[in-house]
Amino acid sequence: MRTETIVLNRKRNVTLTAYLQEVGGEFWYISRRPAILILPGGGYQMCSDREADPVAFPYLKAGYQVFILRYSVKQDAVWPNPLQDYEQAMALIRGNAKKWTLYPDKVAVIGFSAGGHLACAAATLSENRPNAAILGYAVAGSDVRGCLPSAPDTVAAVDERTCPCFLFATRTDGVVPIDNSIRFMEALAKHDISFESHIYSYGPHGFSTCDLSVQHPSTEISARVPHWVEDSIGWLGEVFGILSDDGMSEPICGHYVNGNHEPYLSLDCTVGRILCVPAGRKLSEGILDGLLRGGTDGADGADGNGAPSADPMMELGKKLTMREVLSYLGADAETAERIREQLERIPNRPMEV
Amino acid sequence: MRTETIVLNRKRNVTLTAYLQEVGGEFWYISRRPAILILPGGGYQMCSDREADPVAFPYLKAGYQVFILRYSVKQDAVWPNPLQDYEQAMALIRGNAKKWTLYPDKVAVIGFSAGGHLACAAATLSENRPNAAILGYAVAGSDVRGCLPSAPDTVAAVDERTCPCFLFATRTDGVVPIDNSIRFMEALAKHDISFESHIYSYGPHGFSTCDLSVQHPSTEISARVPHWVEDSIGWLGEVFGILSDDGMSEPICGHYVNGNHEPYLSLDCTVGRILCVPAGRKLSEGILDGLLRGGTDGADGADGNGAPSADPMMELGKKLTMREVLSYLGADAETAERIREQLERIPNRPMEV
Amino acid sequence: MRTETIVLNRKRNVTLTAYLQEVGGEFWYISRRPAILILPGGGYQMCSDREADPVAFPYLKAGYQVFILRYSVKQDAVWPNPLQDYEQAMALIRGNAKKWTLYPDKVAVIGFSAGGHLACAAATLSENRPNAAILGYAVAGSDVRGCLPSAPDTVAAVDERTCPCFLFATRTDGVVPIDNSIRFMEALAKHDISFESHIYSYGPHGFSTCDLSVQHPSTEISARVPHWVEDSIGWLGEVFGILSDDGMSEPICGHYVNGNHEPYLSLDCTVGRILCVPAGRKLSEGILDGLLRGGTDGADGADGNGAPSADPMMELGKKLTMREVLSYLGADAETAERIREQLERIPNRPMEV
Amino acid sequence: MRTETIVLNRKRNVTLTAYLQEVGGEFWYISRRPAILILPGGGYQMCSDREADPVAFPYLKAGYQVFILRYSVKQDAVWPNPLQDYEQAMALIRGNAKKWTLYPDKVAVIGFSAGGHLACAAATLSENRPNAAILGYAVAGSDVRGCLPSAPDTVAAVDERTCPCFLFATRTDGVVPIDNSIRFMEALAKHDISFESHIYSYGPHGFSTCDLSVQHPSTEISARVPHWVEDSIGWLGEVFGILSDDGMSEPICGHYVNGNHEPYLSLDCTVGRILCVPAGRKLSEGILDGLLRGGTDGADGADGNGAPSADPMMELGKKLTMREVLSYLGADAETAERIREQLERIPNRPMEV
Repeated sequence: MRTETIVLNRKRNVTLTAYLQEVGGEFWYISRRPAILILPGGGYQMCSDREADPVAFPYLKAGYQVFILRYSVKQDAVWPNPLQDYEQAMALIRGNAKKWTLYPDKVAVIGFSAGGHLACAAATLSENRPNAAILGYAVAGSDVRGCLPSAPDTVAAVDERTCPCFLFATRTDGVVPIDNSIRFMEALAKHDISFESHIYSYGPHGFSTCDLSVQHPSTEISARVPHWVEDSIGWLGEVFGILSDDGMSEPICGHYVNGNHEPYLSLDCTVGRILCVPAGRKLSEGILDGLLRGGTDGADGADGNGAPSADPMMELGKKLTMREVLSYLGADAETAERIREQLERIPNRPMEV
Repeated sequence: MRTETIVLNRKRNVTLTAYLQEVGGEFWYISRRPAILILPGGGYQMCSDREADPVAFPYLKAGYQVFILRYSVKQDAVWPNPLQDYEQAMALIRGNAKKWTLYPDKVAVIGFSAGGHLACAAATLSENRPNAAILGYAVAGSDVRGCLPSAPDTVAAVDERTCPCFLFATRTDGVVPIDNSIRFMEALAKHDISFESHIYSYGPHGFSTCDLSVQHPSTEISARVPHWVEDSIGWLGEVFGILSDDGMSEPICGHYVNGNHEPYLSLDCTVGRILCVPAGRKLSEGILDGLLRGGTDGADGADGNGAPSADPMMELGKKLTMREVLSYLGADAETAERIREQLERIPNRPMEV
Repeated sequence: MRTETIVLNRKRNVTLTAYLQEVGGEFWYISRRPAILILPGGGYQMCSDREADPVAFPYLKAGYQVFILRYSVKQDAVWPNPLQDYEQAMALIRGNAKKWTLYPDKVAVIGFSAGGHLACAAATLSENRPNAAILGYAVAGSDVRGCLPSAPDTVAAVDERTCPCFLFATRTDGVVPIDNSIRFMEALAKHDISFESHIYSYGPHGFSTCDLSVQHPSTEISARVPHWVEDSIGWLGEVFGILSDDGMSEPICGHYVNGNHEPYLSLDCTVGRILCVPAGRKLSEGILDGLLRGGTDGADGADGNGAPSADPMMELGKKLTMREVLSYLGADAETAERIREQLERIPNRPMEV
Repeated sequence: MRTETIVLNRKRNVTLTAYLQEVGGEFWYISRRPAILILPGGGYQMCSDREADPVAFPYLKAGYQVFILRYSVKQDAVWPNPLQDYEQAMALIRGNAKKWTLYPDKVAVIGFSAGGHLACAAATLSENRPNAAILGYAVAGSDVRGCLPSAPDTVAAVDERTCPCFLFATRTDGVVPIDNSIRFMEALAKHDISFESHIYSYGPHGFSTCDLSVQHPSTEISARVPHWVEDSIGWLGEVFGILSDDGMSEPICGHYVNGNHEPYLSLDCTVGRILCVPAGRKLSEGILDGLLRGGTDGADGADGNGAPSADPMMELGKKLTMREVLSYLGADAETAERIREQLERIPNRPMEV
């Protein structure tokens, strides 16, 4: 492993530390590696050592090229300085992808507490969006102003370009209220972004990896908290794919949980989306009506007394994909195929959303 | 183990199955056991076998007395029939606590999908509240009307009597949108209820324990999903305590995450709450002002340029407990003790909340 | 789940309890299930409840049909009574395979302590051999005479018909010395039987599943011990295959770790075995000599000074399979294929072993 | 983290790489750290990169100072060169304990394959014995001569000064036969050395940490194999103690599993040992005879028919500690205390062993 520290901004004392693993040779099927950029926490007053090297190790073990950004703090932290530090670091990492033998489209960011705020900002406000973000007890919302009044609320900034996210925190965090994680999830859900989230029952703020070397053995914290580390590595493998012969394998998890963000409609669009597109509405209403009336479950479902009627079902159905609804309604393969073909000819241009 | 099936309502075909383990003898330190009541899912059209016995086994292994309620479905499911079935079952379980050697104040409920809706209703709307609730891909919100139009939105019903909850679901659930879990969490957070939550990256609805015997090996689902089973058992041990010599050990997790719901103020109340009580406001403002002005961190914090000022900090501080804020501001033990004494004399009667 | 208790021998108070799960219906891809027979421990003086139901639960969760044999104890335990009880139980289980919807060739046995001795005896001395054996802190060797003087040393009885085994124990077991497990493993290795083994650093005898409901929370025992349960289930899935559409999937682990026990030689036979068969010796010596002389690694390997010479290598090579040795020596696919063809024509009849 | 590479022997190309973590500051309760020395494998022909850095990372995460020794290989590997390299490295590590902020009496060694042979040699033959040894698919026995004819059989060298060991391997290892691990365990057991061992069902030789970055995803290997990493860290915590305020906590696992190696007899000595010391024999025989005759279990145990008689029991008893035997025989606290006092006055000098 080679270690390198690059000064990004001498005046603001910003540095990027790189831990670079070998490729080829005995690692014969590895020509490049995925990468991760660590943003330690510290209330924008410091960059905590407890959330730097100890966080690097598990991702190194998992095969990643690892970078640690020590961004602007204290009086240098006036927004957008920290975000600019991030932009510079991410641009450098991607720009050196060949030299540092990493995949420029497989670079995750991981941030803790205030560094989690910066990671949220990277995921929502930056020019150089990461390909995945891991958010540890992150200050996602306006609470950030408690430590940096000039910093933005990143919950409000979640958009369609926000990358897949992995969130973790403890319910009883006494520094960053749990609403930060919940509201960020809610915003991700609203924009159909893929995510995973673990909120553990209890434990203090700032537990880092929760190893004994960063967290005193007497700390009162749930025994499940250390699982986030392996879980985040498993999740990255789903979002990035895993190291394999020819580059990396295909990801299992996409950017979005449905097809609403593609140029043409498809079976993976939600019914709600399809209904917003006039040609989609016309197509699907006929079919859905037919399926609902002649439902396969007529004996149970049609007789009113507590059984689902079409209307509230349609409300729920709007949130589901056409594929799911067809499957639920028992449509045969031929019907599904016919609808698919027709949908994929309709440009995804809603009248209203 | 003894097995017993009790008919609760012959007309509606409601039954309670009991799996009862021995106490005493070789289980010398166990005189009673905690208990769990399983509510299988099935869209209020059936009670799924996949979410009945297979769910019982891990809790039996963990030492619980286990009950399965097959509640009213199809035309019998008109609300509040299923909830009445629950009330009857829970009353019976607690009423037979001695005979069935269980702790009547350590009875959890676990529900899946529509059974998760019923578990949410038990936690929020019932007379016989459970002591903890495990909610699996639960239909918490108004989406329930898609399968049972007469059923209530339980998110809206979360209150201070709602028990601690453990939620799990997959992000890509194609039957129950993930908003159900997020909005329920949000309601729990608003009422300071303890909880734990795991939202896994991907997987279909209805995975039950995710063992190979309930989930076909070709199912596309995150490898982390089966963890909810052991995690829920660990969590129950925190909320109920664990089996020990004299009854069960003290719980680690309380009902609430702060002291806002006690008759008198305390250091465990949030600053926001204390400020709502006139005598509390008077007491704390003086002290907090003093601490903020004479902060221990003056060199870094006082000079304006990006450093936290009192106002946004006060906004954040309102969500934190007085104990946390004092610790954060570096108050000494004597100051903390003085404030504690004074707070505990003030009745917790807010002017406004 | 149906529960049934069958009296096998009223005089000796021998019973078989069956926990039988459903197949078909919602378990659509399951027409039969694998099975496991539990043999509790108790020094042949009792059948411990702590090693009966609590052991059944995890295998039920994993999808197994589960049986508990309460065999002859105290004055009824004179050998071979307990083994006869086992024979009767196993014959009954396999004889009722259709009725009890289980695979008669996928029946494991699990035994603890003295029950572990009985499981060892089942695996080595019975008519009705199990298809896999899980041996928990088992009294495998002559130590059994400390509790039952008439009982046989099962280490000495390990033979080629012994099934694959999974062993676990604690290093500091103060009742059954760890040599029992080590010597049993050694015998399995000698006969090329597949196995897995976990010896944990410390903990008392008789920990069963090591759940809090069978093991007092103050017990001094390694935190890794409870892993044996899930590990044994994973192992059974390798040896039996897993539940899938058409019966069960192909096993990953065979009965033997090489091909020495088949009627004809193959590349999976050890070189030692092949050399014992005159035609095999003739065939392989020429080839191996050629490969060793003209080795691909000449620059490093040929010059004597500490580099491997043919002789000790040949000693080691005798324990490896021909396939492994060819791969190690860098033989090309064509050479390997030619040797395979020739080997498979030679009957596996050694001159000497 | 600081990285340093020290040339130990320029001629033989021997280097020691140090990965040194910080102490103090944010790691306020850590003044020194435990350490581990990695010995990569490679048949004494190379030092594999796959068993160097990737092995360092998990121990760094766990808080260790980590060292990698690239020892003499190929023509330089003539014994005892590699062992001398080890001696030099270990002496340097302990000699720099203060500067490198590590505990000189908490230095483990971990070796793989041929490096595992070197680790076995360190544990059994070196001047500078490690405090714990982790042995991965190690060539413990005479098979080592297949790759290095001059190297010693370390199984034969196990002695009372051998440190606690953690062994792991796969049953089907096609390069180092599993007997190597079994025979090493057997030798450890014979000398009462503490150990833990995991032999997994199947997998190839040389899997290192079994992460996707060292092991191609298509590798056929048991899903349990990667557990050895975390398990070894848990085990080291038992043998070394864990990081805590004042140095490290007390170890849970001692060097030996009984008291046979102390200068005076005690209740933790095996009965066999005590019987070898004339004064011990005299003391214990009277007591044991008394307890056996007047056993608490007379009704069950005395009537011959299959119940344990004194003789085979005495055979088993010799392997158990006096404390265990007394507890098993139901001796009261007073009796035990009296025996303890008398034993502890008798020097542990056997007539015969």
